[in-house]
Amino acid sequence: MLQVWALAGIGEVAPGTDLVEVIADAARGELVDGDIVVVTSKIVSKAEGRFVVADDREAAITAETVRVVASRTSPTGHVTRIVENRLGMVSAAAGVDASNTPEGTILLLPEDPDASARTLAAGLRERTGALIGVLVSDTLGRAWREGQTDAAIGAAGVQVFEDLRGHVDAEGRPLVVTMPCVADELASAADLVKGKAARLPVAVVRGRADLVGSLDLPGARSIVRPAERDMFRLGADEAYAAGHADGAASAHPR
Amino acid sequence: MLQVWALAGIGEVAPGTDLVEVIADAARGELVDGDIVVVTSKIVSKAEGRFVVADDREAAITAETVRVVASRTSPTGHVTRIVENRLGMVSAAAGVDASNTPEGTILLLPEDPDASARTLAAGLRERTGALIGVLVSDTLGRAWREGQTDAAIGAAGVQVFEDLRGHVDAEGRPLVVTMPCVADELASAADLVKGKAARLPVAVVRGRADLVGSLDLPGARSIVRPAERDMFRLGADEAYAAGHADGAASAHPR
Repeated sequence: MLQVWALAGIGEVAPGTDLVEVIADAARGELVDGDIVVVTSKIVSKAEGRFVVADDREAAITAETVRVVASRTSPTGHVTRIVENRLGMVSAAAGVDASNTPEGTILLLPEDPDASARTLAAGLRERTGALIGVLVSDTLGRAWREGQTDAAIGAAGVQVFEDLRGHVDAEGRPLVVTMPCVADELASAADLVKGKAARLPVAVVRGRADLVGSLDLPGARSIVRPAERDMFRLGADEAYAAGHADGAASAHPR
Repeated sequence: MLQVWALAGIGEVAPGTDLVEVIADAARGELVDGDIVVVTSKIVSKAEGRFVVADDREAAITAETVRVVASRTSPTGHVTRIVENRLGMVSAAAGVDASNTPEGTILLLPEDPDASARTLAAGLRERTGALIGVLVSDTLGRAWREGQTDAAIGAAGVQVFEDLRGHVDAEGRPLVVTMPCVADELASAADLVKGKAARLPVAVVRGRADLVGSLDLPGARSIVRPAERDMFRLGADEAYAAGHADGAASAHPR
């Protein structure tokens, strides 16, 4: 049985807020060995003071962007930019967020979400005495499918993949290519109790203690597929245009 | 509080197995209004007799393929084909599955997973008297992220998106672009209790009764983004090659 619930009583988070204290207080002594705490990246960013003034939104996106993957302008002139950010993640607007922030400000992603998760996990383990795992979650769009799901962008003390590659199926044959990304599935499960409009940025998942372990387990950075191994490292229009330019150039006499 | 558990006692499923009966029996009278039953597509396919002989694997993939999105050959000669299938879904090998099937056979996806979900939901509602939602789930890879997560490929009686577009954030500003794909998040949550190697192909999610409603709600087909609106409708290498050929041709004198 998996149980997932949001912690009530997480108040407004501001730069310098001690999230370990806030989460431990909201959990009211209920955290036990094997619990996984899923924290929305937004409050981690707020606690870390990752605000910039709203006027700089486009500049902030550009600063967070390592590489433009695809962009498209809607008939109304709205530009969607899918980019690879500092963390290697591919997402819209590099994770720069203008909702649920004080008027006139926007919020960047945490500087290093795996490090943030590790600080939280270490603090919660010390404070509660329980073996706690921590995920930092963000809301991501997908290729090929509409809408968004929550995924893990930071992790500490939790296996991000359930590695079944050495296992066999019910017929005894190897499960060769199966590597469920349990960290993303846990973040998605947590999103189902958090609610986007409510102030419920922290959820607890209980029932997968088998995934909780050392703080030295690989972080969520290991979920990110390197661009050079990604068949979708560039949007179709962008790749076509690059090919077209190269094709035209190669056909010209030198 | 969200509760997610797998139903024990789902035995071997064969062509013609009555899944409504099997699931209702395994649930032992515990299903209540608002429960969402998440059924692995594999047992739906088995019950529907979607077997083909294993010799025809490549032919089966080709038959299920509407459009090749991307393909890559590994240094060992293994070919990964990412294709759009009959259902519009983009996935590896068109969902053709050779694990956990009888020796010598492979399994296609259900003919129409939304229709399968609807038959199951209608049957479970009739049998239990409770307002049940049903999702049919499959394991999908993703662009940009390693590993797989479970997603909904069939749905009946469940909202597949939680549409927040008319809502406001905690500061009163509209949540303009947020449309969580709760069906995929529910499928992911269910995967956390199912286990790939075990025979636990059905899970129940309790605690989001607000998402359960009419059997006429849009199915999982509505999650699929049409290729013409998808910035990643073609792999980067494939799009580049198409552009290169067109560019070279356009530069040649006629």
